Amino acid sequence: MEIIINGVFLLSEVNLPKTKRGKETLDKILKAAEVLFSSQGYYNTSITDITRKANVALGTFYIYFKDKKSVFAFLINELSKSLRHELSLAIKECKSRYEAEYIGFKTFFEFVKQHRGLYKIVWEAQFVDKKVFRDYYEGIAKGYIERVNKAKTCDEVKKELDTETIVYCLIGIANFIGLRWVIWENEPVPNRVIEDMMKFIKEGAFN
Amino acid sequence: MEIIINGVFLLSEVNLPKTKRGKETLDKILKAAEVLFSSQGYYNTSITDITRKANVALGTFYIYFKDKKSVFAFLINELSKSLRHELSLAIKECKSRYEAEYIGFKTFFEFVKQHRGLYKIVWEAQFVDKKVFRDYYEGIAKGYIERVNKAKTCDEVKKELDTETIVYCLIGIANFIGLRWVIWENEPVPNRVIEDMMKFIKEGAFN
Repeated sequence: MEIIINGVFLLSEVNLPKTKRGKETLDKILKAAEVLFSSQGYYNTSITDITRKANVALGTFYIYFKDKKSVFAFLINELSKSLRHELSLAIKECKSRYEAEYIGFKTFFEFVKQHRGLYKIVWEAQFVDKKVFRDYYEGIAKGYIERVNKAKTCDEVKKELDTETIVYCLIGIANFIGLRWVIWENEPVPNRVIEDMMKFIKEGAFN
Repeated sequence: MEIIINGVFLLSEVNLPKTKRGKETLDKILKAAEVLFSSQGYYNTSITDITRKANVALGTFYIYFKDKKSVFAFLINELSKSLRHELSLAIKECKSRYEAEYIGFKTFFEFVKQHRGLYKIVWEAQFVDKKVFRDYYEGIAKGYIERVNKAKTCDEVKKELDTETIVYCLIGIANFIGLRWVIWENEPVPNRVIEDMMKFIKEGAFN
């Protein structure tokens, strides 16, 4: 599996559609793949399962993807892009980095609710393709690091702390609070948990 | 898969050996299972693969385990018990909760180094058996919550923060700092990272 670093796939792996209809078909395939990879995993899902669920012909799959691994990697990349897109929309109007963290965490929990298979798909990528797994988190960490660095220049975040370390602490917190509530309890993270988590983060990393 | 809550398996799933030789055989099977589940995953590993790697007869497997799922669940339970055991040994002499956190995090990173497949095995359990997956983290969280509560009574930890929330934040931090360094770089977590992570935690949760 070769993937260009900024998330653009080589044409031999994935062919992006140019027409509106093609985009809709690709979207149906991706939605079916997300449901199946979430519920039964990568290894128990066949391309036929995906096309049957998407209600498209088997040959249609191969217009867009080289093989099962390509659609899996592409799906993870799409999830990462779509999470980052939603985060950046949500925090656009925020007046401070702390406010952006607060809204960002809530947006992440909402995203997990909408994509309940997210952890399963991403974490299974450890077996399917180590690079895709690492790229997913590094893609998220990259923009996050830039934002925290910016907040350091305005003295919002503690300058003495390594930015990457702060960011991986925050990603870890988001993942495990999301796991505890959204995945295990199938309910929104309670407000009291969000408040206490944010106090922890504020005192830990903010000035 | 039925598991009694405190981690004791029903006899229909697992038969624990009574002799020293039996324990050695069980241990060989577990070590082989850990290597195979880590490298190729649960679904791509057969019982025959495990017995071949452990160098025991196929029938020997069934003396101890009912099926592949039983050995998988038992292995995860053993990993959790062994991590908790190492943590409790390591922090036994600690004079404060903060010192125990410091030593505890280092012990966890060392454990990940010794069991590099830990994340893969535990995270794949989301597909194999949701309860085993949740039990793994809840088992770790349970003792952790007791310890943090105790530290609250001596005013070491901020009383206004919900203990379970603190604990899941800490578990998330440990997991993602371990992932970033021990798993991805295959090297110990750098001291500067540990120092900054601990400053974050100290200011975030400690008085």
